Amino acid sequence: MTEVSDWPASAEVSDAERIALSVLAGDGGVAELRDLFDWLSASGERNHATARQIPLEHMAKWRIDQATGNIAHESGGFFGLEGIAVDLPGRVIPRWTQPIIKQPEVGVLGLLAKQFDGVPHFLVQAKAEPGNRNGVQISPTVQATRSNYTRVHGGSAVPYLDFFLDARRHRVLTDVRQSEQGAWFYQKRNRNMVVEVTDDVEVLEGFRWVTLGQVHRLLAMTDVVNMDTRTVLSCLPFAGVDLTAVFTGPADDFRTGLIRSAAPGAGVHSMSDILHWITDRRARTSARLTSVPLRDLDGWVRADGRIFHESGYFFHVIGVEVRAGRREVTHWAQPMIRPVGIGVIGLLVTRIDGVVHALMHAHIEPGYVDVVELAPTVQCTPENYEYLPAEAKPEYLDRILTAPAGQVRFDTVLSEEGGRFYHARNRYIVVEVDAGTVTESEEYRWLSVGQLVELLRHSYYVNVQARSLIACLHSLLGEGHA
Amino acid sequence: MTEVSDWPASAEVSDAERIALSVLAGDGGVAELRDLFDWLSASGERNHATARQIPLEHMAKWRIDQATGNIAHESGGFFGLEGIAVDLPGRVIPRWTQPIIKQPEVGVLGLLAKQFDGVPHFLVQAKAEPGNRNGVQISPTVQATRSNYTRVHGGSAVPYLDFFLDARRHRVLTDVRQSEQGAWFYQKRNRNMVVEVTDDVEVLEGFRWVTLGQVHRLLAMTDVVNMDTRTVLSCLPFAGVDLTAVFTGPADDFRTGLIRSAAPGAGVHSMSDILHWITDRRARTSARLTSVPLRDLDGWVRADGRIFHESGYFFHVIGVEVRAGRREVTHWAQPMIRPVGIGVIGLLVTRIDGVVHALMHAHIEPGYVDVVELAPTVQCTPENYEYLPAEAKPEYLDRILTAPAGQVRFDTVLSEEGGRFYHARNRYIVVEVDAGTVTESEEYRWLSVGQLVELLRHSYYVNVQARSLIACLHSLLGEGHA
Repeated sequence: MTEVSDWPASAEVSDAERIALSVLAGDGGVAELRDLFDWLSASGERNHATARQIPLEHMAKWRIDQATGNIAHESGGFFGLEGIAVDLPGRVIPRWTQPIIKQPEVGVLGLLAKQFDGVPHFLVQAKAEPGNRNGVQISPTVQATRSNYTRVHGGSAVPYLDFFLDARRHRVLTDVRQSEQGAWFYQKRNRNMVVEVTDDVEVLEGFRWVTLGQVHRLLAMTDVVNMDTRTVLSCLPFAGVDLTAVFTGPADDFRTGLIRSAAPGAGVHSMSDILHWITDRRARTSARLTSVPLRDLDGWVRADGRIFHESGYFFHVIGVEVRAGRREVTHWAQPMIRPVGIGVIGLLVTRIDGVVHALMHAHIEPGYVDVVELAPTVQCTPENYEYLPAEAKPEYLDRILTAPAGQVRFDTVLSEEGGRFYHARNRYIVVEVDAGTVTESEEYRWLSVGQLVELLRHSYYVNVQARSLIACLHSLLGEGHA
Repeated sequence: MTEVSDWPASAEVSDAERIALSVLAGDGGVAELRDLFDWLSASGERNHATARQIPLEHMAKWRIDQATGNIAHESGGFFGLEGIAVDLPGRVIPRWTQPIIKQPEVGVLGLLAKQFDGVPHFLVQAKAEPGNRNGVQISPTVQATRSNYTRVHGGSAVPYLDFFLDARRHRVLTDVRQSEQGAWFYQKRNRNMVVEVTDDVEVLEGFRWVTLGQVHRLLAMTDVVNMDTRTVLSCLPFAGVDLTAVFTGPADDFRTGLIRSAAPGAGVHSMSDILHWITDRRARTSARLTSVPLRDLDGWVRADGRIFHESGYFFHVIGVEVRAGRREVTHWAQPMIRPVGIGVIGLLVTRIDGVVHALMHAHIEPGYVDVVELAPTVQCTPENYEYLPAEAKPEYLDRILTAPAGQVRFDTVLSEEGGRFYHARNRYIVVEVDAGTVTESEEYRWLSVGQLVELLRHSYYVNVQARSLIACLHSLLGEGHA
């Protein structure tokens, strides 16, 4: 492989090339990983959060509206739970109702970057969240709602926040608002930011500079790298560049195809055709959302201090009481969404002319700002199809679940955001197939990874599950080099 | 100049270069323009629309809700008028209420393109609209709401529509949903499409193939090229290309600066910095919109069969009865917005390192889908400041209105959409200044024209007034060549 030290520290190296260097950095050995885990578990001991389920009615500082049953924080800030009815005329499931989280504030997911010996490092945090099943996970430098940092719930200052609120003083590598789970959030957006500093930065307890190579190795482990880290990483400027000069090490064909996938112009469809496809899908979809009082949702029951679907599937809305060893506040209650079952987030990939392409799905979720976003090939909770009609089952689910081991490029269970979701876990799986075995249709298209990253410069194109998978795909770039 | 015939008709010429050829095409002589005007006025005689103001209460097929005063079409489709309250805490005008048009449907503004002798021509229509003060104007090939083409109001088929609804059979040059006036429309979006065909196309009465050079000469004339044509033209792929080889004719410095402004990488700010700026403006703006019954708007009066502001400024909501000589239907009534006064849409431009830049304003309008869009430097109706506080007056208005003639690059009164707005006219004016005399602030940034066109590949970045001005700027590319 090219030695990192061969690369000049000058500005002639593009951001993408420098980020690629960070993918290769770290010796990748057992000692390094063990050191990271020692740090993570030591942080976990000092910084734990225990969440105890309590009845929704007993949550301190939360109000349940008498007339509607809607749940809101007494400050009016933070977030709330309301009900919606979704109409999708002509679809297999043309109408349903559900609870949904309303969080109109745009929060900040910020990752601080700094070069050490010419290699970008990223300041991550070992952070406990009430919904994490395993205590701490790797988080971005800053993960803050506006209520957080304007102290609506009386917490202490968010460390490092000023680097992001006053980012112009530094170099902004990425700053884009992206959606989160549109099945559970109504039009929630977070600002995904990567800011590079040259100043000395004090490393507080629970924080650590890591390379992308190190994060990528952790990403292959169950429930270690949290959702907010994954989405910010996916927005790094990794597209439109020829990275073959950086990634010169031993490479199998898939890895070479992945490297080529970032190159300018890579992709079997032109960007104009992709934008036309997305515009067309959005223009043709008639979706109607109606606000419904939370207590009046068909099929949803409020009993035992929680809200759940009469079928027992989908998710529960629960109350939790949190005690945290070291956080902005040490004791609070809040509602959370507790999904039923483990989801499958599956991506079919293929090599076309030696370039890795991902089969993206033009997907509708009620909470999207702009009707349709590009989702992975499959995204669902298989158990739900014991209740839902079989025709509603995603087209490629079985293909992904029954893929032979030799076709599986990535397969790890990862957690969703632990601040709103309780033990929400998905199996992220990437399966390589022959292009000839898949026929594109109106809802599915092959995109190169570089095209997806290019779309990620803008809001509302690529959904949060797909963003996680893009981070997973990038993690395969460093494979086999050490 | 380079002769059009010197250029190969092969695919080696990029779309942008070929479109540039169309800018130069046409002899630009008096005979050609006279021929165009003969066609336009002949079309106007066969295809006129007369609009007579009638009381809102007397509009056939429209309902005024007893409880709210909101106005809706009896079909439930088409569009309606409702009320909103706008809160912008911390601004000079922190709160106001107003009527607004709700038109949730996404319509199609489609321009058909076809090469003749290697030069793209565009199929325009001489179309009468009830709000036009002068009968017919140059319209795109198709200009249709969904209610239009699904025949909600019982009209006949929209000619050429299938080229756009089934565009995959052809070459799609542009397909992007863009906002329209956010001061008068609530989240209205139209699909801006340019589709290139190779088939023979029958030219129906009232339609005609024209070059961009011809449209550009008409654009310099009062009220001739309509808003829908201007917005579609602005979305043509005109960015990221070196056009110096096409535009080789005699050029003054401004025109050369304009040609350079389309080139790859042109722009004093990087695209990352521009996207960061837009994200930051959007994230920092707290705007709240509340639905208010149309009859309960503070300061708005319903009398004499119309709705108007007690000050006499802003706009009136009126009813009109339309009789059209040749349209989808020949007789109908509808509400329209009738603005008070002629607006000023002004753009400061400058040359930085020989590249033309435009001073864009991060602008808030209540109807925007995504909080803030890039607007021209100034966009307002000066008369309104006889009523509004002086501090609310746009920063550069006087500078634009008092610019010496030698600095004025474009200055024409153009109409806004004649289907919803009655005699809505704006003076579009481009003024060149020294960069040193303008200080960028949080709300204003210099962007190259190429960067604006690049942003126009995506929705909600560049507002409709700025799009008109981009079409006007492109019209200056052909200047002086003939």
